[in-house]
Amino acid sequence: MQDLYPTRGEKIQRLERQDPVVHNEDRDGLSHDTTVRLRRFERDGYLFLPGLFHEAETTRLLREAERLKAQAESNADETAFFERDSGAVRSIFAVHDNSALFRAVAEDPRILTLASDILGDEVYVHQSRLNYKPAFSGREFYWHSDFETWHAEDGMPRMRALSVSLCLTPSLATNGPLMLIPGSHATFVGCPGETPPEHFRRSLVKQEIGTPDQESLTRMASRRGIKAPTGAAGSVIAFDCNTMHASAGNLTPFPRTNLFIVYNAMSNRIGEPFAAPRPRPEFIAARNRVQPLPRK
Amino acid sequence: MQDLYPTRGEKIQRLERQDPVVHNEDRDGLSHDTTVRLRRFERDGYLFLPGLFHEAETTRLLREAERLKAQAESNADETAFFERDSGAVRSIFAVHDNSALFRAVAEDPRILTLASDILGDEVYVHQSRLNYKPAFSGREFYWHSDFETWHAEDGMPRMRALSVSLCLTPSLATNGPLMLIPGSHATFVGCPGETPPEHFRRSLVKQEIGTPDQESLTRMASRRGIKAPTGAAGSVIAFDCNTMHASAGNLTPFPRTNLFIVYNAMSNRIGEPFAAPRPRPEFIAARNRVQPLPRK
Repeated sequence: MQDLYPTRGEKIQRLERQDPVVHNEDRDGLSHDTTVRLRRFERDGYLFLPGLFHEAETTRLLREAERLKAQAESNADETAFFERDSGAVRSIFAVHDNSALFRAVAEDPRILTLASDILGDEVYVHQSRLNYKPAFSGREFYWHSDFETWHAEDGMPRMRALSVSLCLTPSLATNGPLMLIPGSHATFVGCPGETPPEHFRRSLVKQEIGTPDQESLTRMASRRGIKAPTGAAGSVIAFDCNTMHASAGNLTPFPRTNLFIVYNAMSNRIGEPFAAPRPRPEFIAARNRVQPLPRK
Repeated sequence: MQDLYPTRGEKIQRLERQDPVVHNEDRDGLSHDTTVRLRRFERDGYLFLPGLFHEAETTRLLREAERLKAQAESNADETAFFERDSGAVRSIFAVHDNSALFRAVAEDPRILTLASDILGDEVYVHQSRLNYKPAFSGREFYWHSDFETWHAEDGMPRMRALSVSLCLTPSLATNGPLMLIPGSHATFVGCPGETPPEHFRRSLVKQEIGTPDQESLTRMASRRGIKAPTGAAGSVIAFDCNTMHASAGNLTPFPRTNLFIVYNAMSNRIGEPFAAPRPRPEFIAARNRVQPLPRK
């Protein structure tokens, strides 16, 4: 298979995106609201939907997230990752597999329909995770394009995937909210450095390989700045697989817990990694157990 | 001298503030604007004054800050402190002594008058510093009350001092702005831990002793939240010596450079440290070379 997005080589390479952002070719049948959303997603590389879920729903989901965290604290399996300094739970993966409640979120029409409309295909869950960003000690996530990793380490061929982040706690300006660079999804930044074996064990705690250079980030951010949408629990940010994003540490007493669901087009299923010695495990990147999500 | 604010002992102690916030007893002669400002400062423990300085002024000041940084990079003296990981310049002290331009800021009536009105006395510069918070790598400042350190390590007897932070670059929501807990200035949190000798060498890079416990922070922040004023270069935040504040790391390509001037009342000059083996050096805490600033 041709590698349209070479990365993990010797040098930084800035390449033009080779894929559409909104893949749905037939937009005539869509509602006005949906059309507006798709245009914004196409232009910015993300879409902020405040209050898409109700507070009562997120209360229940947050309780479920706390339950999984307590479980990981007492009896950690491989799906849990911990903060370097404090040892607090940083992320838990494959939560749509391990919890009926999170499975239901992945299949919820409010986000599944949006994902299908953007990707123009049947979709499946490539990855799901809870990020806890604990109070006082939550560490940052440095700038990255998810696609860069999914392409290099998981073998995702094309840019035809997106993430949905559902805030289970209020996303404040001060507790390490998701930051995005609008427009950055139009450029692929191939990042230098060879992927070491089992790279995910380190990169999911602190990513150092597969991160863009400062010049690329400065160029991208100088055009349209950096956005950090804030809102109540239940707010949703959907963002393209190649949108450059990061989040700062959390020093506040307010944890920031988010559920991430990554949707990939069925036509874009993953193959051999493009730049890694072997694929990442199934709980980080769905490879064998792949089923199109049912649209209701 | 009686120690009204014991700290660095065995346990956390939450004590009521023993001093006024606004010390000026004769407010009748003040303008309406000033009266409003003093009331807000009294209630919140800080005051945000967007655009107090003009852009042309801050451009010149930023150039001066860059000059001092380049000087520290090539030939560091003891007034410069560096980031742990990146080695970038984090802070430079005593800049009102080392630069006529910063001296002029300290004497500028726009802030000096405010400081005198709040402190109700002639004032002098207890400390001045530039914080650079460099792009991509600027590290956080954890929660602290300045007074806790000034009392313990410098021997400042009473709460009758304040800081003025002048933004030399835009203070964005995303580049690690100053965060303050409104109302926190009403409580003194005595922090556990013995002050080691030469503590400032470490604490000015990463403070670990003299920091409040999570419960105190949670209580304080749960009442009125956390504020992080943002604004153009030239904006000013004045805050009480006991207001709990912090700032997150800076992952963005936009450095956040601030000038801090700390004013202390002449009647509140420092003595023997209340909880440290010996006083900090003159360039961090003015002790011998103390002169009231001339009001113009």
